[in-house]
Amino acid sequence: MRNIKLTIEYDGTAFSGWQSQNNARAVQDVVANAVRELTGEDCKLVGASRTDAGVHALGQTANFFTSSKIPADKFSYALNTVLPADVTIRSSEEADAGFHSRFSAKGKKYRYLMFNSRLPSALLRDRAYHVPLPLNIDWMKDAAGCFLGKHDFSAFRATGSSVRTSERTITHISLVKNGELIEFEISGDGFLYNMVRIIAGTLVYVGLGKIKSSEIPLILESRDRERAGKTAPAQGLYLVEVFY
Amino acid sequence: MRNIKLTIEYDGTAFSGWQSQNNARAVQDVVANAVRELTGEDCKLVGASRTDAGVHALGQTANFFTSSKIPADKFSYALNTVLPADVTIRSSEEADAGFHSRFSAKGKKYRYLMFNSRLPSALLRDRAYHVPLPLNIDWMKDAAGCFLGKHDFSAFRATGSSVRTSERTITHISLVKNGELIEFEISGDGFLYNMVRIIAGTLVYVGLGKIKSSEIPLILESRDRERAGKTAPAQGLYLVEVFY
Repeated sequence: MRNIKLTIEYDGTAFSGWQSQNNARAVQDVVANAVRELTGEDCKLVGASRTDAGVHALGQTANFFTSSKIPADKFSYALNTVLPADVTIRSSEEADAGFHSRFSAKGKKYRYLMFNSRLPSALLRDRAYHVPLPLNIDWMKDAAGCFLGKHDFSAFRATGSSVRTSERTITHISLVKNGELIEFEISGDGFLYNMVRIIAGTLVYVGLGKIKSSEIPLILESRDRERAGKTAPAQGLYLVEVFY
Repeated sequence: MRNIKLTIEYDGTAFSGWQSQNNARAVQDVVANAVRELTGEDCKLVGASRTDAGVHALGQTANFFTSSKIPADKFSYALNTVLPADVTIRSSEEADAGFHSRFSAKGKKYRYLMFNSRLPSALLRDRAYHVPLPLNIDWMKDAAGCFLGKHDFSAFRATGSSVRTSERTITHISLVKNGELIEFEISGDGFLYNMVRIIAGTLVYVGLGKIKSSEIPLILESRDRERAGKTAPAQGLYLVEVFY
């Protein structure tokens, strides 16, 4: 059996998310069905990240085992011919037998787009978070810097979620304003449930003056979800890359 | 009667184009209906450009006359509450009685996006022209420069179209490669039917080596549509701005 690694792009708008669910259109099912159509084999597709409904991906990764003779790099082309247009395979390659798209991941990079303009954008309606009030980008940059390094992110995860540890290390942060578009990028060794969206929502609160950037270290220390900002909407979030 | 000028953004994907047509969803009708809903008056909405099906706009302009008392700058907010999400009014203002969005226009700016990558992009599927073979950007830049200035663009208009003169002046051209995305921008005093898409298609032929950049002046002189490249698809085209 060969282990095939896929890099997947999708427009999350018409999906219930990555993870297979009853009576919902999940990316995992759509891709697994395409593999089945191609290979004639049952396909257990493991994704690196369980993105939520409406969240996009430029570089989700997934892997599956197959005894098919299709060359590894040809899977991308072949799968794209049977996939719907809102999911595309951006690359396919053979991985070691021990490769697991989720457990082998060393980190991830996410992007969050905000459209800061009095009036909404038709073209960005499902691609960015529309913030009509003016955001102070300098305050937001100061706040963003506070997330760098190793922290307990309990204050920045959805309540009710439970994982072994809530410590994560953020290795890279950037916040760039380009006209009315604000692009926030964050890389780290892992992310808690809704963590990027809560950080993005908190940065918006900072930009609006509702939270001071100097409060961010205190909010982190408090481990109190109530003190951080609102969870920013799904449509602004992009899974950019999974690191191995 | 006041004359209201609107700046309109739309995602052209689900539209038959700007112009009202029987049994088709036209941007003109959708906006005119929204004005009617708001003012209770019949609305004759004049657009600056009759964009085709699938073509997007960041800054289409249109105007209409009204005796409504709604302040001019409030039309944008009010219309956005009744418009579908794929059309948004980006600004509204009062214009002189003599202002006509089409006849008063002094020029227009268009953008054409190409996605140059072996494999297609899910997120750009309706937003850019996917060109899988590698494009030589330097050749394309050389070719693009040839369109600057005043020319007879007969070779770069859809056959069968007829207007008084086929001379147009191109005032600005730029071609920028950003990763796998190529952004072509062109401004001029006017454009013939399909002119930007035929120029874009010709630039792709140049990038592929099918046409030499040195041939562009000869193709312009020939006035022969057969010698230019194919009409590039609608989904890559954006009406960026109308100049007055």
